[in-house]
Amino acid sequence: MSAGTRVHTLRFDAGRLHLLDQRVLPGVVREIALADAAGVAGAIRDMVVRGAPAIGVAAAYGAALSVAAHTGQPDWRARVAGDLALLEAARPTAVNLAWAIARMRALLAQDPADPAAAARALAVRIHEDDVAANRRLGDLGAALIEGPCQVLTHCNAGALATAGYGTALGVIRSAFAQGRIERVLADETRPWLQGARLTAWELVRDGIPVSLIADGAASWAMRQGLVAWVIVGADRVAANGDVANKIGTYALAVSARFHGVRFMVAAPVSTIDPACRDGDAIPIEQRSQDELLSLAGVRHAAEGASAWNPVFDVTPAALVDVLVTEKGVVERPDREAIARLLAS
Amino acid sequence: MSAGTRVHTLRFDAGRLHLLDQRVLPGVVREIALADAAGVAGAIRDMVVRGAPAIGVAAAYGAALSVAAHTGQPDWRARVAGDLALLEAARPTAVNLAWAIARMRALLAQDPADPAAAARALAVRIHEDDVAANRRLGDLGAALIEGPCQVLTHCNAGALATAGYGTALGVIRSAFAQGRIERVLADETRPWLQGARLTAWELVRDGIPVSLIADGAASWAMRQGLVAWVIVGADRVAANGDVANKIGTYALAVSARFHGVRFMVAAPVSTIDPACRDGDAIPIEQRSQDELLSLAGVRHAAEGASAWNPVFDVTPAALVDVLVTEKGVVERPDREAIARLLAS
Repeated sequence: MSAGTRVHTLRFDAGRLHLLDQRVLPGVVREIALADAAGVAGAIRDMVVRGAPAIGVAAAYGAALSVAAHTGQPDWRARVAGDLALLEAARPTAVNLAWAIARMRALLAQDPADPAAAARALAVRIHEDDVAANRRLGDLGAALIEGPCQVLTHCNAGALATAGYGTALGVIRSAFAQGRIERVLADETRPWLQGARLTAWELVRDGIPVSLIADGAASWAMRQGLVAWVIVGADRVAANGDVANKIGTYALAVSARFHGVRFMVAAPVSTIDPACRDGDAIPIEQRSQDELLSLAGVRHAAEGASAWNPVFDVTPAALVDVLVTEKGVVERPDREAIARLLAS
Repeated sequence: MSAGTRVHTLRFDAGRLHLLDQRVLPGVVREIALADAAGVAGAIRDMVVRGAPAIGVAAAYGAALSVAAHTGQPDWRARVAGDLALLEAARPTAVNLAWAIARMRALLAQDPADPAAAARALAVRIHEDDVAANRRLGDLGAALIEGPCQVLTHCNAGALATAGYGTALGVIRSAFAQGRIERVLADETRPWLQGARLTAWELVRDGIPVSLIADGAASWAMRQGLVAWVIVGADRVAANGDVANKIGTYALAVSARFHGVRFMVAAPVSTIDPACRDGDAIPIEQRSQDELLSLAGVRHAAEGASAWNPVFDVTPAALVDVLVTEKGVVERPDREAIARLLAS
């Protein structure tokens, strides 16, 4: 994840996309190799890879695999179109997925001489651009933090959620390196425990002190004065600045406002969806009730109980103090400020 | 738990205190029989029995076991005093524990002719009074709820947390029976999962529709208009109305206020601690980091990560809309209103 290690969230090698299997981290570190678009779509749906920027990059490679497999055949465009639709539908909330597929469609519409080479080059570019965007937004976000202080993050918006370095964790990595952050409080993030399993893993590897807390303890930590900033990623930012992110983010934003704690959203511009008027237009994925009713395959909840499991929520722009992107920082984001950022 | 079933949170029979082992519910329904005060203190500490009123009743029986074991011996008072101190120290936050032990000390100071019989009679009375108090406060709380509506509860303040019927779940049981509540959203309540394991179990047994949610989803449910009331129990209420309860309660209170959702605390008068000036004076129990780092004995969090695990928090009285006790209802509780209630 961090420089100098040999673990990659995703890498393309020898005609296959290799994904670090995030379902079994941190206990097991293993890669899954995928040779076709259907396999990549399944891996996105099953959360082998997760995190909005990372699934955008994975989908781009999945599209490139599809073009490589079908180009030359008479019906290759129809087959690729089917694969792109499959990839796009794998998960509904993160816009980076649709954004990457739209870029691939636009490329193919230009009728490149070697579609397979062009598609693969675009996937590599999307991959490399994401890493560069993370580095840039990490530095921009870090500059806002007057430290040394403690910050709180939710879910995993780290190297594992992106092509590398991370969005919220990119800001945290940069700020820690500059002495602005002393310790990170990480929500464990039920039901999938991205905080306990993934964020803690990344931060421990980087030598950044991290304390896990129950999601319900975050407000209490704020009341105790233990949190200077809440720093989170995003799965989609609407044109008015409303932010879809992991369930629990909205609760943090409400609590941060109540306590006067600042609330930062760190995301690449590819996460902003100008076609999405506001948060009400963002589809919120509901996942299986089993994620709440069972642990490690063993049912712990009472038989007969059901569960309500929306895995994202929407934080209204009015609760966001600052949106940090690789193109710049937007304080108190609103429709006009977002439009200015995208036009810049 | 509910009338007509054969399962009891605690029962005293044949000289032993039988506790339903709440650590293994709902998968395993088993009782643990305890013959002495040290065993009862251990069971409270290990959370075989939990919930402020229930541990008060369990401690009273533990004290009665101690008196029965030692009375007649020359040093019986010293031995009993040691056992009472052991019981009192088993868990720090719930005041019902100290309250029950104080009643037992006051009884013994009166030098009853048959100390063992008197101690046992007092334990039985504390037990029966708790059930009666729950019934009464359940009805008083239910009368406040204009339904039909959905309510949200946190942790388990049910029959399992009391001698029977429950505090928050007592209100919910009464209100459901009256058609005022249609469905309960239950926070799963990390780290111990009291909501998923215990509250869901109780409600399913009583035929009350229940949907589990991740703790982080509660604010989002409020924003969606799915919650008319938040109804919780308490482990200690300070003289000014500040409320210590399961970690995550404070976050719900902040969010309820933000959304205009009403916030009810249901607790017997024995949970009010007039000697405790305000919430800052309430000791907050920290439990093992392992409760957050491991699931069912298997470590899931990254090696090297630590955890911060306060298992209670304090909700300031200003965020409580109504405190419901068996002696009456206090709207917007404050020091004067609490004093009036206790004097009534």
